Amino acid sequence: MNCIFCQIAKKELPATIIYEDESFVAFKDINPIAPIHYLIIPKKHITSINHLELQDKELMGELFLAAKKIAKTQGIADNGYRLVFNVGKDSGQMVDHLHLHLLGGKKLLWS
Amino acid sequence: MNCIFCQIAKKELPATIIYEDESFVAFKDINPIAPIHYLIIPKKHITSINHLELQDKELMGELFLAAKKIAKTQGIADNGYRLVFNVGKDSGQMVDHLHLHLLGGKKLLWS
Repeated sequence: MNCIFCQIAKKELPATIIYEDESFVAFKDINPIAPIHYLIIPKKHITSINHLELQDKELMGELFLAAKKIAKTQGIADNGYRLVFNVGKDSGQMVDHLHLHLLGGKKLLWS
Repeated sequence: MNCIFCQIAKKELPATIIYEDESFVAFKDINPIAPIHYLIIPKKHITSINHLELQDKELMGELFLAAKKIAKTQGIADNGYRLVFNVGKDSGQMVDHLHLHLLGGKKLLWS
């Protein structure tokens, strides 16, 4: 499979990794739209939220516990942050490997 | 507790509910920023992602399976959509009851 996020998870492609555990890797987005902009991905290849299966339920829960932990260690838990999944073309999803955007470090727009 | 989203979940406050199951309610955002803009909330009161606990893991996974299902029944699964958690003041979180924004029905901006 030629998935670039699978390759990042396996360290076959470079990325600025800021967190890793058994199930997830988090790294800096190369086109940041906020002072803090990380992508948190499961090491397991899941294409998008549209491709979630019942068996992924626990993994998805763990992803948000990881996101909470990363926001805290990166110092944005108190001021606040945004978590985003883009799904499909209307959203601008760029890579077909499920990834959670963690955005923070400024007042985030909403419109 | 005076949480307005708990009150919506209990039908003590009105909302345009578009989905409900044992654990979740989804309803129209009263200040939509996209043609489709729903909020999906757990019936259980959780203040925000910062307040998630280990015991909420399965519920969070179920939330995304519900979101996937709602996107499909609302006809936006194929064109795409965005799922957003705002957490705390930098994000503009307006109600202190965890809610997942489901946005779609147009090309969504990213900046």
